[in-house]
Amino acid sequence: MQARVASLTQFNHPLSIEERELPPPSNGEVLVEILAAGVCGSDVHMWRGKDPRTRLPLVLGHEGVGRVVAPVGRKHDLRGSQLATGDVIIWDRGTTCGQCYFCAVKKKPYLCPHRQVYGIVRDGCYSTHLLLLPRTRLLRLPEGADPAPLVVAACSGATAAHAVAACQLEIGDRVVILGPGPVGVMTLCFALARGAKKVLVLGRPGDEERLALCRRFGAAEALAVSCAEEAAQGVMEFTNDHGAEAVIECTGSPQAVQEALLMTAPGGVCSAPGVAVPVGEIGVRIYEDIVRKNVRLQGIWVSDTSHLHQAVSLLLSRRWPLEELVSHRFRLEEATLALETVEKRQAFKAVLMPH
Amino acid sequence: MQARVASLTQFNHPLSIEERELPPPSNGEVLVEILAAGVCGSDVHMWRGKDPRTRLPLVLGHEGVGRVVAPVGRKHDLRGSQLATGDVIIWDRGTTCGQCYFCAVKKKPYLCPHRQVYGIVRDGCYSTHLLLLPRTRLLRLPEGADPAPLVVAACSGATAAHAVAACQLEIGDRVVILGPGPVGVMTLCFALARGAKKVLVLGRPGDEERLALCRRFGAAEALAVSCAEEAAQGVMEFTNDHGAEAVIECTGSPQAVQEALLMTAPGGVCSAPGVAVPVGEIGVRIYEDIVRKNVRLQGIWVSDTSHLHQAVSLLLSRRWPLEELVSHRFRLEEATLALETVEKRQAFKAVLMPH
Amino acid sequence: MQARVASLTQFNHPLSIEERELPPPSNGEVLVEILAAGVCGSDVHMWRGKDPRTRLPLVLGHEGVGRVVAPVGRKHDLRGSQLATGDVIIWDRGTTCGQCYFCAVKKKPYLCPHRQVYGIVRDGCYSTHLLLLPRTRLLRLPEGADPAPLVVAACSGATAAHAVAACQLEIGDRVVILGPGPVGVMTLCFALARGAKKVLVLGRPGDEERLALCRRFGAAEALAVSCAEEAAQGVMEFTNDHGAEAVIECTGSPQAVQEALLMTAPGGVCSAPGVAVPVGEIGVRIYEDIVRKNVRLQGIWVSDTSHLHQAVSLLLSRRWPLEELVSHRFRLEEATLALETVEKRQAFKAVLMPH
Amino acid sequence: MQARVASLTQFNHPLSIEERELPPPSNGEVLVEILAAGVCGSDVHMWRGKDPRTRLPLVLGHEGVGRVVAPVGRKHDLRGSQLATGDVIIWDRGTTCGQCYFCAVKKKPYLCPHRQVYGIVRDGCYSTHLLLLPRTRLLRLPEGADPAPLVVAACSGATAAHAVAACQLEIGDRVVILGPGPVGVMTLCFALARGAKKVLVLGRPGDEERLALCRRFGAAEALAVSCAEEAAQGVMEFTNDHGAEAVIECTGSPQAVQEALLMTAPGGVCSAPGVAVPVGEIGVRIYEDIVRKNVRLQGIWVSDTSHLHQAVSLLLSRRWPLEELVSHRFRLEEATLALETVEKRQAFKAVLMPH
Repeated sequence: MQARVASLTQFNHPLSIEERELPPPSNGEVLVEILAAGVCGSDVHMWRGKDPRTRLPLVLGHEGVGRVVAPVGRKHDLRGSQLATGDVIIWDRGTTCGQCYFCAVKKKPYLCPHRQVYGIVRDGCYSTHLLLLPRTRLLRLPEGADPAPLVVAACSGATAAHAVAACQLEIGDRVVILGPGPVGVMTLCFALARGAKKVLVLGRPGDEERLALCRRFGAAEALAVSCAEEAAQGVMEFTNDHGAEAVIECTGSPQAVQEALLMTAPGGVCSAPGVAVPVGEIGVRIYEDIVRKNVRLQGIWVSDTSHLHQAVSLLLSRRWPLEELVSHRFRLEEATLALETVEKRQAFKAVLMPH
Repeated sequence: MQARVASLTQFNHPLSIEERELPPPSNGEVLVEILAAGVCGSDVHMWRGKDPRTRLPLVLGHEGVGRVVAPVGRKHDLRGSQLATGDVIIWDRGTTCGQCYFCAVKKKPYLCPHRQVYGIVRDGCYSTHLLLLPRTRLLRLPEGADPAPLVVAACSGATAAHAVAACQLEIGDRVVILGPGPVGVMTLCFALARGAKKVLVLGRPGDEERLALCRRFGAAEALAVSCAEEAAQGVMEFTNDHGAEAVIECTGSPQAVQEALLMTAPGGVCSAPGVAVPVGEIGVRIYEDIVRKNVRLQGIWVSDTSHLHQAVSLLLSRRWPLEELVSHRFRLEEATLALETVEKRQAFKAVLMPH
Repeated sequence: MQARVASLTQFNHPLSIEERELPPPSNGEVLVEILAAGVCGSDVHMWRGKDPRTRLPLVLGHEGVGRVVAPVGRKHDLRGSQLATGDVIIWDRGTTCGQCYFCAVKKKPYLCPHRQVYGIVRDGCYSTHLLLLPRTRLLRLPEGADPAPLVVAACSGATAAHAVAACQLEIGDRVVILGPGPVGVMTLCFALARGAKKVLVLGRPGDEERLALCRRFGAAEALAVSCAEEAAQGVMEFTNDHGAEAVIECTGSPQAVQEALLMTAPGGVCSAPGVAVPVGEIGVRIYEDIVRKNVRLQGIWVSDTSHLHQAVSLLLSRRWPLEELVSHRFRLEEATLALETVEKRQAFKAVLMPH
Repeated sequence: MQARVASLTQFNHPLSIEERELPPPSNGEVLVEILAAGVCGSDVHMWRGKDPRTRLPLVLGHEGVGRVVAPVGRKHDLRGSQLATGDVIIWDRGTTCGQCYFCAVKKKPYLCPHRQVYGIVRDGCYSTHLLLLPRTRLLRLPEGADPAPLVVAACSGATAAHAVAACQLEIGDRVVILGPGPVGVMTLCFALARGAKKVLVLGRPGDEERLALCRRFGAAEALAVSCAEEAAQGVMEFTNDHGAEAVIECTGSPQAVQEALLMTAPGGVCSAPGVAVPVGEIGVRIYEDIVRKNVRLQGIWVSDTSHLHQAVSLLLSRRWPLEELVSHRFRLEEATLALETVEKRQAFKAVLMPH
């Protein structure tokens, strides 16, 4: 099987479009034709050489939806459906060992030290085809669904699922989300899906379009604030001076975590899925912000299959206007342009459509 | 590799002692020399042909501790230790697929429809050697520990871990355990390990020795009662007429579940790991025993690797006199005698020592 | 202060419309003018003399919304707002001691043995005015909201909150609700608010209008089934033969609990808020329905203030067409007619409007 | 009733021994004769004028055990026992409103804004007698128990209960405790009572006696370390380089919280009950210490009645040598000496015995 890939061979240079010969799938593997591959902000980091894990050459792309090619023997998806040629599927971007302390005892496979991620640790979805490992967990998607917005489930959606689940929301809780990007919007959807009474999304000046999208997705308010004081004031007005039962930091900025703690109500939780690379130290007033308020600061590292399942379920629920998620679609050959568009924040979400 | 096994070839007949040629371990498999194999009550059921799952011929034995034979390549145990020849290990008796809804989404692998159990679905531990599947989860044991009592961790210990975890005990709760057999005693240990204020174990007349063992293991009281009324009265005296915050049914008798609900305090839980085969219907007063008391009846089906890990941790903690657990040791050739001894309730716990 | 009440003086006879002199509120009490009083199915039971707790004479009515009359000193609602004359409020129908084991240690005040309920243990809301106890918990409602549908929060809404919270739903779970009455519909709303992927409501022939209302409230399906087999078949089709992760029994029929267990998926929960009076024994196949499936049967007894808070939050969220909840409104003098209308199942929800 | 009190009338001066006339108990109040009053480290802070909440004059003492004086009408303890003259009781040092959002909706009464604490907000236990508020929650103690060590349940024991409950320990987890003072030792007991596999307590040079006491109370190791590096190294050796599933900071030093995060295993929790006054900012590496490890930092503010109940249950369990807890006993007239002894760290736990 011949595949065409966009390969990162040199940092900061255009991706190289190449033909590759894929071996036939061996036992338990599944060959898919990539229908849509999401372009994630961390792809830009890798392209720019800022992610120390990156080993060249590498085919980027950890978010994908594909179609099963050729017979696969007896292979089932998460729901127990036997896969057939032509099925459209999504998969957990991280394949874990299932045998270690984190997988088998703690049931937190996102911490598995053997976790292999397509597009980060091994070749990914910027490709016409991908050979999925035997232990990659698959989920069949309904026929006829647009694959482009569904790629969001693979990374930002699953991470948002993890971040919101960790908040243990109660019906009636007020939620604040910092950062109206893809993770922020998915976090908004999960907060609403878990019973938040109302959600406030905070962005920065320039985020107006993204904030408008948040309002269309159900945010009670979505504000552009230019400093920490303004942000804190917005939250206190939103919550009648109580603070928010949950604050979810989706910007990746360390300052935002500090601000988030100020906004958290006594007994509340501050969930932090946004920070994805080392950003140095933040100052935490341990008494005022953590102990006296009995607050929980919860770090969120990536996601697992249960979160992917939640994200797909949410995206298929028709409660939200999914079609608005994907602002830009590119051909595989335009992968470099797609990275640039994301880097310049011109795209809310860009997706490669290799076929 | 030549192995000697005790094979069940015909129900109700003596097990057949046979020599078998084991294939060399292929990739990911681990060959172990069985040091100790527990004889479980359900082995007797299988021998007697009462368990409809049993397909002959079959080597029984789902509880085992063994020593790693020959090099194994890079294979790690649950704690991340690389296995070496000579290591003493225990393993999860059930090997699960890791890919299905129950394994990957619900994280309840004990419900995996592909669960394979040594000694039940495939050949087990009544043998000098066993070839463990690549996906069987392993845990290295400390050198020098007596392997015989540790087999208890594999089945009754892990099941007890599951049953007590589901109770979500609080420090100060009072616990009642019905049935002073191996599951009951392990349940007692877990209840104490999770902060039960005091534990009452109830048995039937004839159980006096077992009840005395429960007292040595930390039961505040251990009583032989001859009827439901006497049992209920014992619990009400034990709890100052409040009922027990948790009642754990470890006899397998359906009547005992009915009794257990009567003993459960308002807001409490009745956990049921004992019933292992169909026993017909029980009558439940849905208003008085469940709804009005806001009680939870929790079925417990087998266990998973997290429970095995707990059971090993508990058994190695030196808080309890483990050496008292094993009442009888037999050679492999005496496997039939071991089954008879268990069937007659002459043994508290019988273990085969094939070497 | 003169109040007019509809008093139950003799079972099965028309309620007696009487004038009563209320004492002035003493320290901590709050006098309210009743704006709306719900007529609950259990009011009919009490009227018919079927509830052994009923002591005559009694003013029925445990669901109420009222307006604060006259100054109240420094009295705050649950959110910390200081109450003022004219404020519209709702309150927890049960006032609990706050000092007992269930209130203070277990934090399950619905089990408080000293719980006093308006309209059941003491005079209630079938009245122009009501004097609320100092320890009754209050919640201010927004000005201008129609008080009639909000009474639902006080009893069926709060109970539904309790029943669904106990299910610990995950995003993506499938939920079945038995019984399309007020508790069933509120349970539907809470299941959706907590992330159920889709909800099936089952009724009996004759329930068509109620089932249509369930569809308008968001049920994926709402079916009238005439027997247990048809019900089970409907659930299995709805869930692709998996069973439902949560089944919530809202009919009060003991047979329904039996059916509910058959419909529950492995690892799932069957929550039972419907049964409110003794209904005898049900037969439970302890192995097949509870243990082998690792299922939890959770009894639900009434509710507490946290559930009331959830119910008010949900009803004010504008996600559902609240105005459809109240099918009939009556004057206080028509209280007997209201009971008859509810008894004949002609009303979905009837509310007295005493002013 | 005449009472003798040790009153703090001027910061840094000896407490003033005074006679006071107590009013007769009014409805719901309970007059107790103080049998033992604990001298807490925060009493020293208040004496020294370092706690801004302190309003003079004030009778210190928030930890007490007393004997009921004179008939009390129908008053029950937490377990439902009717109190009688002569009963020995302990009580929740904080009396909460029961009506606010934190008490009634969130069920976290330790965050109640109306919480009144004996010896901090109102006169406390440095007295021969104390009049307990009607809403103070009481727990009867067994006759004959030495009251001095039981005062530990009132403050450090209850706080430790809260801190360890928040860790949600699993059987087999490894726990590290920073600080071998009274909170640290009680935290050790709770960690063991909840199934910790082994506990390491870290102190500073000079803490050798306290560390020896920790070993007698069940710590697997108890080390004096002189710097953060040595502490981290000790933990990594203790946990085979994994980190501890739970680290509980009981020193109150902000640096210790930073160290604690370094010691926490991936997926673990760092619980912080020690910091009781503002101590400025600490630097947290948000990526390395929180997000990448998926760690939870949980602030712990005081405790509630459920924690008191746990602490009493634990102290009465006879698993630990309670008599070792109290190093010094003083007469009421020696209260100033007691404060000095605690301030100089000469006492592990000092208790006033006013009778």
